[in-house]
Amino acid sequence: MQEHDIAALRQLFDDWVAASRAGDTARVLELMDEDAVFLQPAQPPLCGRAAFAAAAAGMAGSVRFEVDRTERELVVEGDFAWCWSTLSLRITPVAGGPAMLREGPVLSLLQRGKDGRWRLLRDANMLGPARPAEP
Amino acid sequence: MQEHDIAALRQLFDDWVAASRAGDTARVLELMDEDAVFLQPAQPPLCGRAAFAAAAAGMAGSVRFEVDRTERELVVEGDFAWCWSTLSLRITPVAGGPAMLREGPVLSLLQRGKDGRWRLLRDANMLGPARPAEP
Repeated sequence: MQEHDIAALRQLFDDWVAASRAGDTARVLELMDEDAVFLQPAQPPLCGRAAFAAAAAGMAGSVRFEVDRTERELVVEGDFAWCWSTLSLRITPVAGGPAMLREGPVLSLLQRGKDGRWRLLRDANMLGPARPAEP
Repeated sequence: MQEHDIAALRQLFDDWVAASRAGDTARVLELMDEDAVFLQPAQPPLCGRAAFAAAAAGMAGSVRFEVDRTERELVVEGDFAWCWSTLSLRITPVAGGPAMLREGPVLSLLQRGKDGRWRLLRDANMLGPARPAEP
């Protein structure tokens, strides 16, 4: 069961990265809890699917994301799990201009719903400030 | 049981703040797991009690901390718990000079040990950069 959960959680993160890259916000929303909370430095918390969707819509079409993700730790405890990963996020303006890079750790909490599916519940994003991707 | 755990976890955070203010690193170390991990932006992870102690020793005597902590969420799931809180950290150089302020959210994971005591296991620190406390 543990192995099955680990595989399902890794698939969730892979799906998240692929959907983000494709700009498929509807798919990303399916991977999070209705009341998911996204925390990051110097920003108010983003609470719930609707707030996430609004933030995504605000960026839609202006930038392209490429995510490189390394799992550091993935632990399942009953219907909860947490994952510590390291992200490298490359942000390319669609209209042209230099690509930027943000890197750092992310700590995510996940919950298994009554339907048996895992979803992101809390996300602590510690990516550093954007810097030019090419020195 | 749930209420008892919530009270024990709040006491842990109160003890942590009080010990930090007093510069009592030995007491802070008792409140964390041997393999606790501290994550923050633009810094390598701090892994384990020994690394935390070394970082604390590096600052000892040079600055004074005052912490203002607001709990946003505290959830217990079996032998695990998580807490989302908002911190305001005031850093005052002992040798004089302007006090600085760092503010932002923290997401903490805690674990109940075999001895029944709760300890900090993972800490995602999203405090923003230091800025002058007095404008």
